[in-house]
Amino acid sequence: MKRTAFFISDGTGITSEALGHSLLAQFDAIEFEQITLPYIDSVDKANEAVHKINSAAESDQARPLIFDTVVDENIRAIIANSNAFKIDVFSSFLKPLESELGADSNYSVGKSHGIVERTRYKDRIDSVNFAIDNDDGARTKQYANADIILVGVSRCGKTPTCLYMAMQFGIRAANYPLTEEDLEFNKLPSVLEEHRHKLYGLTIDPFQLAAIRHERRPNSRYASLDQCDFEVREVEKLFKKLNISSINTTNFSIEEISTRVMAHAGLERRMN
Amino acid sequence: MKRTAFFISDGTGITSEALGHSLLAQFDAIEFEQITLPYIDSVDKANEAVHKINSAAESDQARPLIFDTVVDENIRAIIANSNAFKIDVFSSFLKPLESELGADSNYSVGKSHGIVERTRYKDRIDSVNFAIDNDDGARTKQYANADIILVGVSRCGKTPTCLYMAMQFGIRAANYPLTEEDLEFNKLPSVLEEHRHKLYGLTIDPFQLAAIRHERRPNSRYASLDQCDFEVREVEKLFKKLNISSINTTNFSIEEISTRVMAHAGLERRMN
Repeated sequence: MKRTAFFISDGTGITSEALGHSLLAQFDAIEFEQITLPYIDSVDKANEAVHKINSAAESDQARPLIFDTVVDENIRAIIANSNAFKIDVFSSFLKPLESELGADSNYSVGKSHGIVERTRYKDRIDSVNFAIDNDDGARTKQYANADIILVGVSRCGKTPTCLYMAMQFGIRAANYPLTEEDLEFNKLPSVLEEHRHKLYGLTIDPFQLAAIRHERRPNSRYASLDQCDFEVREVEKLFKKLNISSINTTNFSIEEISTRVMAHAGLERRMN
Repeated sequence: MKRTAFFISDGTGITSEALGHSLLAQFDAIEFEQITLPYIDSVDKANEAVHKINSAAESDQARPLIFDTVVDENIRAIIANSNAFKIDVFSSFLKPLESELGADSNYSVGKSHGIVERTRYKDRIDSVNFAIDNDDGARTKQYANADIILVGVSRCGKTPTCLYMAMQFGIRAANYPLTEEDLEFNKLPSVLEEHRHKLYGLTIDPFQLAAIRHERRPNSRYASLDQCDFEVREVEKLFKKLNISSINTTNFSIEEISTRVMAHAGLERRMN
């Protein structure tokens, strides 16, 4: 049985998507087609959305689900008239919040993206640039400015984790790949020694590492299971010997790796 | 008046953070201290969270707000006993959804991160690698595989936008910086010609561009207002002449730029 779910917003749609996605994940037995309709900020666009919703209702032979974070009341009213089951996030929660806080809410589109958000934007752009500049051990001189330095073997997930922490939380994250040579010496490269308190290790299942490397360089020694097995075993030994905290990335999403690393390393999220 | 808000989750906390953040943004008059408590997945951690909440209640002299997406009922019950005003996302919406769908929900922690999510993970990692490999016009040979190619002057926001589209939606985004020379010729570099249907322009306010460039290379010609003004004027002329759609990034967050570009360019979000 298939149901269509619409995530509708007058902004990016990322909040209603995230909320809807995690609610729908609680229903294993049902197949959902998930459609995001962002920037529904005019009557015309609202009517167009209603048309899409009603078409889905007809072709599914079941009314779609709507996760709605539109603020404007007129637009919400139009969407409410579609043939759908509606989860209205703002009206469910804003009224109780208003009475708890003893204050009126703005009910205004895009209010959260004013001057405060520009500061956050700049922080995040700076952090993304920092992550790119300091990817793969490229510019170790900037390590003094890093909040954290991820270490691990090639292709264990360091780069996307650094970028996610930068993008989502404004964290300055560098990373340094531990090579076969580093591992054979069984000690840290000297450039990392003085930043030891900032180091955090990533490790990975050797089979998965081999599969990832195989795509990059098919049938190479680099991608062989023997090699991956050796590197992972050695890197885990090194983490243990030097008392470097580490996380195994194998069964985690980028969000999970990033937020777990941050929680363990005591890094605060920069939300504002 | 200050209030503390806690975003509490047994997972990454990103959903409750996003939801709480956009709800709180509707209350201008109140200053919120926002604290995320992720991975609250044991009785011990729940008790620790309650302790933090109750301490905040005391020091604020007002009960904190809680945005809770914990699935486990025992843990939710412990948190519910704290001295706080609670927005319980799952219990508000899961019951109505169950009855609409005629199905029970899993109520199980981390269910959304199974095998399906690994595929999505791989897609996203591949896209992030693609964005890095194809940043700043580095490897134009891969443009045939791009979903979109962002063009614009140096430092107008191309790189973070590409990375966000890759990370969040699995889009393969390349970018190419249009230089002073390109602009003086008043035509596209030949390497872009054959991919013209994939091009999307970014532009920016010259004052802001000068400020951003100034941080990178203080007091350079590159960062001068004259130069920024010239480049922005010329690039906008070029977009117009060649009929390349474009967006002005000046007042938008990375999420907004990315999702607007995707909506305009007709790129679908890859959520699964």
